Amino acid sequence: MTQSIQLDLPEWLAETLRTQRTCISDEDKVRLAISLANQNVIQRSGGPFGAVVFDEDDRVVAAGVNRVVPLNCSTAHAEMMAFMFAQRHLGRFRLNGDGRRYTLATSAQPCAMCYGGSLWAGIDRLLIGARGSDVEELSEFDEGPLPADWVGELERRKIDVRRDLLRDQAREVFLRYREHAGVAY
Amino acid sequence: MTQSIQLDLPEWLAETLRTQRTCISDEDKVRLAISLANQNVIQRSGGPFGAVVFDEDDRVVAAGVNRVVPLNCSTAHAEMMAFMFAQRHLGRFRLNGDGRRYTLATSAQPCAMCYGGSLWAGIDRLLIGARGSDVEELSEFDEGPLPADWVGELERRKIDVRRDLLRDQAREVFLRYREHAGVAY
Repeated sequence: MTQSIQLDLPEWLAETLRTQRTCISDEDKVRLAISLANQNVIQRSGGPFGAVVFDEDDRVVAAGVNRVVPLNCSTAHAEMMAFMFAQRHLGRFRLNGDGRRYTLATSAQPCAMCYGGSLWAGIDRLLIGARGSDVEELSEFDEGPLPADWVGELERRKIDVRRDLLRDQAREVFLRYREHAGVAY
Repeated sequence: MTQSIQLDLPEWLAETLRTQRTCISDEDKVRLAISLANQNVIQRSGGPFGAVVFDEDDRVVAAGVNRVVPLNCSTAHAEMMAFMFAQRHLGRFRLNGDGRRYTLATSAQPCAMCYGGSLWAGIDRLLIGARGSDVEELSEFDEGPLPADWVGELERRKIDVRRDLLRDQAREVFLRYREHAGVAY
């Protein structure tokens, strides 16, 4: 029985991040997440989702893209990959365990799993591009059921939420994914 | 920037599974999950949670235990580890993609993240030991917010849920964890 599994990011991602190390505004942070989602579609390295963890100096800590199909792993959503890589990079299971503030920018509203994952990752801010309803309207991806007051539940746990950042650009990723005949699993 | 991370299970787990390959009844399936949770506490290899994926012939496909602290990974809950290892073992991101039925047995009610993860993993049955309220009563772990009708939402997605299996034994794991002075993160 396997004792160890490996999760990897596509090679083009490291290349992109070499030139994109800082994003000052919330819009720019989500713009980077959307651009990773787009690249992931174009490069056929996974589903149409991207996410980036930033530190409080607006620097990229780690990024993730959806890798469900290439890795045979239903957990490998963009947000989860970004959290896992950021935590590994910082050497702790709670990003803000150092008392500093961390932000996740994501190209689309987290699904039910990534929503829960966002509670435990140690982020202070969640920046979202497309809405869950956009994802379900423009693709066949299921977002899953959330608590009725999902934003309030995050805010009660001291995670600020900003939605609809570059929403139109974020929606376009799903149209591109369709053109590339991506399979929604 | 790291391009690849590794997630591993403790060595004692493979040893335990060498002699425990089949669990016929639902109770026996949850008993195995509880026993892994207990072992994880005793061996100090992670938090007090265990989970096992079974195929429709009641054979273990893969198992997981909580590895959040040792792996610096807030995603490494028992259920998520079991799903990831089972999917890697079977070579597909949806366990029941082969048209057969799969079951997850877990020592305690899935938290908000693992709840969402259970929707995407490709299971047909979810067997649960301790309740979420037990976890929160007996430990400092937060289960996170679930949709009001979380069982119904699973059942609408064709995932049968059985709760309170060996609940008393499942509750005892948290008492043992306390004795071992485990840190709830």
